[in-house]
Amino acid sequence: MQASFFFSLDFAYYLDSRYIVRVKSAMDLECGSQEPVKQGLLARGWLKIKALSNNVTAEVFEFFRTLRKLGQDDPRRVVHSLKAGLALTLVSLFYYYQPLYDSFGVSAMWAVITVVVVFEFSVGATLGKGVNRGLGTLLAGALAIGAHQLANLTGRIQICTCAAAISTFARFCPKIKARYDYGLLVFILTFSLISISGFRDDEILELVHKRLLTVVIGGSTCVIISVLLFPVWAGQDLHNLIASNMEKLGVFLEGFGDEYFRMAEEGESKQGISLLQGYKSVLNSKNNEEALANFARWEPRHGRFQFRHPWKQYLKIGALTRQCAYRIESLNGHLHADIQAKPEIRSKIQSTCTEMSMESGEALKELSMAIKTMVKPFAADIHIENSKSAVKNLNSLLKSGLWDDEPNLLEVVPVATVASLLIDVVSCTANIAESVHELATMLNFEAVEPTVLRETEPEI
Amino acid sequence: MQASFFFSLDFAYYLDSRYIVRVKSAMDLECGSQEPVKQGLLARGWLKIKALSNNVTAEVFEFFRTLRKLGQDDPRRVVHSLKAGLALTLVSLFYYYQPLYDSFGVSAMWAVITVVVVFEFSVGATLGKGVNRGLGTLLAGALAIGAHQLANLTGRIQICTCAAAISTFARFCPKIKARYDYGLLVFILTFSLISISGFRDDEILELVHKRLLTVVIGGSTCVIISVLLFPVWAGQDLHNLIASNMEKLGVFLEGFGDEYFRMAEEGESKQGISLLQGYKSVLNSKNNEEALANFARWEPRHGRFQFRHPWKQYLKIGALTRQCAYRIESLNGHLHADIQAKPEIRSKIQSTCTEMSMESGEALKELSMAIKTMVKPFAADIHIENSKSAVKNLNSLLKSGLWDDEPNLLEVVPVATVASLLIDVVSCTANIAESVHELATMLNFEAVEPTVLRETEPEI
Repeated sequence: MQASFFFSLDFAYYLDSRYIVRVKSAMDLECGSQEPVKQGLLARGWLKIKALSNNVTAEVFEFFRTLRKLGQDDPRRVVHSLKAGLALTLVSLFYYYQPLYDSFGVSAMWAVITVVVVFEFSVGATLGKGVNRGLGTLLAGALAIGAHQLANLTGRIQICTCAAAISTFARFCPKIKARYDYGLLVFILTFSLISISGFRDDEILELVHKRLLTVVIGGSTCVIISVLLFPVWAGQDLHNLIASNMEKLGVFLEGFGDEYFRMAEEGESKQGISLLQGYKSVLNSKNNEEALANFARWEPRHGRFQFRHPWKQYLKIGALTRQCAYRIESLNGHLHADIQAKPEIRSKIQSTCTEMSMESGEALKELSMAIKTMVKPFAADIHIENSKSAVKNLNSLLKSGLWDDEPNLLEVVPVATVASLLIDVVSCTANIAESVHELATMLNFEAVEPTVLRETEPEI
Repeated sequence: MQASFFFSLDFAYYLDSRYIVRVKSAMDLECGSQEPVKQGLLARGWLKIKALSNNVTAEVFEFFRTLRKLGQDDPRRVVHSLKAGLALTLVSLFYYYQPLYDSFGVSAMWAVITVVVVFEFSVGATLGKGVNRGLGTLLAGALAIGAHQLANLTGRIQICTCAAAISTFARFCPKIKARYDYGLLVFILTFSLISISGFRDDEILELVHKRLLTVVIGGSTCVIISVLLFPVWAGQDLHNLIASNMEKLGVFLEGFGDEYFRMAEEGESKQGISLLQGYKSVLNSKNNEEALANFARWEPRHGRFQFRHPWKQYLKIGALTRQCAYRIESLNGHLHADIQAKPEIRSKIQSTCTEMSMESGEALKELSMAIKTMVKPFAADIHIENSKSAVKNLNSLLKSGLWDDEPNLLEVVPVATVASLLIDVVSCTANIAESVHELATMLNFEAVEPTVLRETEPEI
């Protein structure tokens, strides 16, 4: 009976882990009334163990659920894992085929190490790490041979210490950190290994030669697999990230006007607000953008991206987008504010503010689309012009003294702030549009007439 | 004469590289008038080479200047480099002393590799990497021995491929990436190396044993040196970063009121504005804070920091500080705006706005000081109260219709926006103060009466 009880407890736990407390206390009551105290204690101990194992099971399930979600969010991650497995299998063949093993021996290990360490998610990261590893090994090998000629072991250890200290320090330099951090690490590693091990092995030239060859083999295996099999280009990712960040801001702005003024009419609608929170990720995208740009610089020509693609311009657009996102963060604060202005105060600028917000949102979406499809952002220009003329309308409304009948400025201030922030957003959007135009000129984007716009908005 | 000319050119270049163009064109003119064309070409070629070598020299000089600046900015970097050199020297002794070398042989190499890879700037990062490397090696060794019992080489390569693919995929999981990313990398590395090399070497148990021992020796060397010699604690760094970020915002706010209203009186003073731009780094500090918190979790008790210090609370305070920084970014836009409101419009709210800005700035500085010195933030509470009553004053001013004689609302809107943003800043500051109080309660900060405040502000 006890067993079946635990079974039902187990089952209840799987149904919903929150029920366990209820079931547990029900059982405690039962134990207390019908069984001796000792057995009750035993049962309680057993229950604790059960609960613990259930917790572990639940965590393992949770972990696998997370893994599945990771795969669903970006299936390229699954492909990447399989590619890493494949690369490792390929270099393992060194050990499998006798002739290859005979010529490399234990050094073949370095090919495996290189694959594990160098194989990264994007082509740029893999290439960067591969080149860094190759150059680091080459330079360290050459210098280590030189050091080996010069000194005895004590001297070599001193040289090695100095080289390690200097290289470690150079890794703090931001420019070096961005591109050659890993190369310096490999340099220290190889230099120490070769110059110290030279004490035992006089065939140091052969060691360097083998080491370099295995690293090149491992590195090129990684690069070839990452370029040929479903390549993930960091440049393409950066391109998409910049475009999608703009789109997120656009979505917020398109929804903001309606949401802000509807709240005044129908009370708050929290659901609508939560749909607009996608822009939050833009606030902290700086590091991600810079990392992708660093990787992208290593990548060869692919698709419409050249080797010396203007990645700096992407970073510039990204920075301007973030500037806009900071203003939007302030706007978002006004959606959540406890005290809202009276509807009659808002309604006076409702149409112009909604237009400013809507038009700059559409402009951002068109700019995002222009980057994605690599066409000149003509379609956005119309929206930019519309948003600017909405600002002019608002200005003349304000000049005409629309709130003169409202003695309580306290109520006017929040609405005026929203209007002012929207004016900022319009000017931010214009800046973004300008820098996207610069990018379009640099890359000779196609000039396509904005036909899509005409179809969706036939009244213009 | 030509030689002395080049010398003077060289000298001119060092004086200021921008002069080179002027000197070069002067020389071109001279060459054209007095020498044959061929010699002029030669001279020009020579000049180009000279300029190139000058460029290289200048870049090398620039590089060393950057290095010196890096050392001056944070002398701990120099110390870290020397510590890395020392750690490497210590493990090199394996090769130096015959008895040690005899017992470890080539495996001693792994100690060197471990030191180079594990030694990081802060204790937390070093400990984290060391533990990851140790655990990864242990787990991979155990599993590799198991795999070795089971299958022949083909089977082992298959198992290895699967393990690599699964581990590579697990590294995408954010929670795992934060703490065990390096451990998984080492796991893949060690598992592949051991399970594949088992084909050649049947003494796999000894290999695993030696590998693990050398890794432990290398790792503990790193940890001991990084803890005992001038330790750099990531937790302390996070603590200071959070406090200094608050202080930066405080500096801006203290200066903002004066700057904004003085601009109206005396025209723009760009110098004052540039002094206030220190807060910009706060906008993008999220990744840095999270990395430091991840490292800090590995650190043992040190000074006033316990092992399970509430690092999450620091991240919460950091997030609230960034929220405040976004508002300040908007405020900063109003310092730089081309169109400013008329002085007579501003002057009506000058004193209250300056007080709001000044008081919340001082509150932030007091909060920062409270965190730095680990005392309860009583001193800040007074400023928070003052800033809140300034908000109330502003509200009653607005209710009394202070701008009623101003028909042009267009001029009022920017000032009203600044006031509204300052109200937001006051509420952000109150939130920050609340979370600092929470931290003070969690950590039992000392309760010190705000005597310092009374000394500096005797009029209260």
